[in-house]
Amino acid sequence: MGSLASERSVVGLAAKDATGVLSPYTYTLRKTGEEDVVVKVLYCGICHTDIHQTKNHLGMSNYPMVPGHEVVGEVIEVGPAVSKFQPGDVVGVGVIVGCCRTCTPCKSDVEQYCNKRIWSYNDVYTDGKPTQGGFASTMIVDQKFAVKIPAGLAPEQAAPLLCAGVTVYSPLKHFGLMAPGLRGAILGLGGVGHMGVKVAKVMGHHVTVISSSDKKKAEAMDHLGADAYLVSSDAAQMAAAADSLDYIIDTVPVFHPLEPYLSLLKLDGKLILLGVINEPLQFVSPMVMLGRKAITGSFIGSMTETQEVLEFCAKKGLTSTIEMVKMDYVNQAIERLERNDVRYRFVVDVAGSKFEP
Amino acid sequence: MGSLASERSVVGLAAKDATGVLSPYTYTLRKTGEEDVVVKVLYCGICHTDIHQTKNHLGMSNYPMVPGHEVVGEVIEVGPAVSKFQPGDVVGVGVIVGCCRTCTPCKSDVEQYCNKRIWSYNDVYTDGKPTQGGFASTMIVDQKFAVKIPAGLAPEQAAPLLCAGVTVYSPLKHFGLMAPGLRGAILGLGGVGHMGVKVAKVMGHHVTVISSSDKKKAEAMDHLGADAYLVSSDAAQMAAAADSLDYIIDTVPVFHPLEPYLSLLKLDGKLILLGVINEPLQFVSPMVMLGRKAITGSFIGSMTETQEVLEFCAKKGLTSTIEMVKMDYVNQAIERLERNDVRYRFVVDVAGSKFEP
Repeated sequence: MGSLASERSVVGLAAKDATGVLSPYTYTLRKTGEEDVVVKVLYCGICHTDIHQTKNHLGMSNYPMVPGHEVVGEVIEVGPAVSKFQPGDVVGVGVIVGCCRTCTPCKSDVEQYCNKRIWSYNDVYTDGKPTQGGFASTMIVDQKFAVKIPAGLAPEQAAPLLCAGVTVYSPLKHFGLMAPGLRGAILGLGGVGHMGVKVAKVMGHHVTVISSSDKKKAEAMDHLGADAYLVSSDAAQMAAAADSLDYIIDTVPVFHPLEPYLSLLKLDGKLILLGVINEPLQFVSPMVMLGRKAITGSFIGSMTETQEVLEFCAKKGLTSTIEMVKMDYVNQAIERLERNDVRYRFVVDVAGSKFEP
Repeated sequence: MGSLASERSVVGLAAKDATGVLSPYTYTLRKTGEEDVVVKVLYCGICHTDIHQTKNHLGMSNYPMVPGHEVVGEVIEVGPAVSKFQPGDVVGVGVIVGCCRTCTPCKSDVEQYCNKRIWSYNDVYTDGKPTQGGFASTMIVDQKFAVKIPAGLAPEQAAPLLCAGVTVYSPLKHFGLMAPGLRGAILGLGGVGHMGVKVAKVMGHHVTVISSSDKKKAEAMDHLGADAYLVSSDAAQMAAAADSLDYIIDTVPVFHPLEPYLSLLKLDGKLILLGVINEPLQFVSPMVMLGRKAITGSFIGSMTETQEVLEFCAKKGLTSTIEMVKMDYVNQAIERLERNDVRYRFVVDVAGSKFEP
């Protein structure tokens, strides 16, 4: 166990340029620090953000880049000051691996809002080295940014909870929307949206899926267990649903009008935006004033909430709907995800794949 | 006191058409109902909404129209089932004089959000007759929609609290923003904005006035007692104030960009819109997601909150800054208000004026 004094050479699949095509890449991980845990990667989910990053859609990508931020793995070594974990533990690593620890968000245990947060990949760690994600044999992470996968939750099932799952759980918890009997809606049925339906259902909510067409109706009602399905282009349906919802979780990542959805909210209802949209969204002020409605948003979740959502799902028996693939299929999986051809989340069986060069 | 069986003839100042010019108008009030109080009007504030209504800016005006919804008067008669008031009481009447009493907002004591609320004027009462406002010798109102003016609060001082005052008090209370030490800002220094500064100051907040130029700086700091003044066109000042505010009360009634103000909010900060703006406002979703900020709004306040704000102001010794005028000056006052030439609210001495034809 001499690794406290040595860097560790690992292999991952990295994008080398903005084509985003992943291919084997050998790099070193930092020496195991006092509070670090070394994680042998078992599974890693593929999130839409991985595409934005590997293909440089945000203009901030650095290469080579090993993506992956829904990482489940086994602890194989711990630094001397690690108290939370021991070798053999199954742990999760999500979107963030560092924060300043001194600002108000950090002190309030919502480090995802720290302006100095460090992303799991395509970022620079405190030692000046690039961070690299979960499509790799091994990751190293400060214990603060790992969570324990509870017994009773299959590790591959846990992967999508580390980003998609906590992204819907966090606002429901923060905005006081966990009580049974609430009426909620999910706008957009992708990786995050499908998890939204499942999480809201096990909270005991009446859940409506809102979509632009009736194409996903059978899927939403029969497979995901939604209680209602609303076609947003159907004016009569929308009018009949006016003033009926406590919240809408809006996962749509492109421009869309907000007013049709604001009109569905009850007094004090909340429209919670989860999609990063850089084209301005619009509304007229009476739509929020008359009914004291809120347009708000939320961004992943805290480490505390990540641990909570795992325990919540284990307790409730909630599972993600995933398609498991091997590492040699990752480029195809990314292509399919780009055209929303997945039901609903790809999870890569990293440990079960051979991907060394 | 045979008025339970007879209608009462009264004189007010009414707009007769969309010129908005007010002139004497004689009309009848309904017979005093079981729960009605008859109010001899003492004072009535002039609100910007009065201009929109009398000049048909919203395309919904009916004439003749007696405006005025910041009414303070003396009870001169009560219906047999009235329990809250007795003759001689000084009471206030605000923006609303009726609601359905059965919907969720009504049952939650926030009847201002009832979809069947009845406006104090330019509306139709349950008996089918037009409602008429406070620029008149007498009003008649259901006891639910009158509040008691507390001892220690001058009646003319109370008038602006019935609309402008409760409009700022209600969201601060509802959104949990009454604790001392909070940092708030007021955007727009009109009738509502000046009250916002005063109310926030007596709550013990650090209050910043935000304006497009430094023209109002001395007034804001010296007269209203603001703690800071921020010029929104000064990029350096705005950048220095980033992430510093718990809330912004936005009273601006015309289109303006939201992002500069969202950037001033702390984690979980709230931008509270109070101005009716029918031109769409804009923002990009990361501005609310990263910091879990909310764009919300609020609309006057409940009768309960109206009573509270009066007691709060009486207890704290808070006064409005008003300019008292007589009824023969109302048309000039409206012209001056249209060009924001008032510091900060006109209050009409109705009982002290002669305006009968």
